[in-house]
Amino acid sequence: MPKNEGVSRSVVRRLPRYYRFLGDLLKKDVTRISSRELAQLMQLTASQIRQDLNCFGGFGQQGYGYNVAALHKEIANIMGLNKLNGTILLGAGNLGRTIAKHMHFESSGFRLEGIFDVNPQIIGQALNGLVVQDVAGLSAFCEAHRPRAAILCIPKEVAYDCAKELMALGVNCFWNFSHYDLTLNFEGAVVENVHLGDSLMTLCYQINAYYADEEASGLSGKAK
Amino acid sequence: MPKNEGVSRSVVRRLPRYYRFLGDLLKKDVTRISSRELAQLMQLTASQIRQDLNCFGGFGQQGYGYNVAALHKEIANIMGLNKLNGTILLGAGNLGRTIAKHMHFESSGFRLEGIFDVNPQIIGQALNGLVVQDVAGLSAFCEAHRPRAAILCIPKEVAYDCAKELMALGVNCFWNFSHYDLTLNFEGAVVENVHLGDSLMTLCYQINAYYADEEASGLSGKAK
Repeated sequence: MPKNEGVSRSVVRRLPRYYRFLGDLLKKDVTRISSRELAQLMQLTASQIRQDLNCFGGFGQQGYGYNVAALHKEIANIMGLNKLNGTILLGAGNLGRTIAKHMHFESSGFRLEGIFDVNPQIIGQALNGLVVQDVAGLSAFCEAHRPRAAILCIPKEVAYDCAKELMALGVNCFWNFSHYDLTLNFEGAVVENVHLGDSLMTLCYQINAYYADEEASGLSGKAK
Repeated sequence: MPKNEGVSRSVVRRLPRYYRFLGDLLKKDVTRISSRELAQLMQLTASQIRQDLNCFGGFGQQGYGYNVAALHKEIANIMGLNKLNGTILLGAGNLGRTIAKHMHFESSGFRLEGIFDVNPQIIGQALNGLVVQDVAGLSAFCEAHRPRAAILCIPKEVAYDCAKELMALGVNCFWNFSHYDLTLNFEGAVVENVHLGDSLMTLCYQINAYYADEEASGLSGKAK
């Protein structure tokens, strides 16, 4: 059994990447790999990999390395991908529709059970095998289905009220695409933010730093 | 002038959040704020905020705090939001279309100049004032427009070839939505990844940890 109390957030954040790389190795029929080889592949250090995986009990064998299939499966277990958490999606605009169509929910530990919107033109539309429902029915739906998580593809302005209602209905876990910091007002909530705007601005900073360096070193091929 | 060499990646990652909060304060006509008040609002410590902002020269005044408008503007400057980096988007499927429609490029330091796809059914469609072009014209476009960045909304399988071509065309900066670790093979590239799949799996881990705690403490209201 993996021991996973007190695992740091940064280790948890690296788990999906391990899982992806191990999945790729499996597809290539690689059956075992040393921490050194895995480190090279993932551009980490072997010691970092051993440290990370030791958080969960350590799966490597001296002189053998890791069994790829076993480690892949263990990491799936650690992340809980083998159980499906009932999930609802709020907001079926551009972003919500893309999330509903684009994501592999079932292989990521989720089952998308309901999609809700306020827009009468969107309500009733079919979306990935579900019919978009009026948000007025949210309470009855949660009562009946007891979803664990909600995906928020809603405007920032309504995020507070929406999260408040959901938490009152027993939904405490959020995949938050709205530009609202849920954690500020909902202490007990489990929140994973996807701040696309922040990500884009971070890239902007990096690009400017890159071009400043390039210009400073006189290597720029841009100025003709 | 802000001094921003050697600023840590984690500080850079926090800048957009400062920028968002200061923008909200501006909208509420707040003209100045102490590091203590800002810390409370953002759930950081005052010392963390002072440390972060000191990386760029420090903008606070003893006994006065921060001038909200000035700090907001300074952070925009630091991130380089006042210049627009020419950008192209590759892949106009569900995700690409949503990104094109959903993001505020111009206020984030980018100008979206071209959209490319391989699908004949998508090529020629209008998307946010641009016409989706055949990827066959990518080289000529880059020669003429010299975009700095590319947004990759393409499948993992084609990401390597696509990035290789772009880098040969002088595009070295990527907002990467493909599930491919560009940095592994393109050392000089500037990459900001959005791994939605990893984010979803991270949430899965957190949900399981949350419910394990709840069940362990006997507080679960789920089991009736």
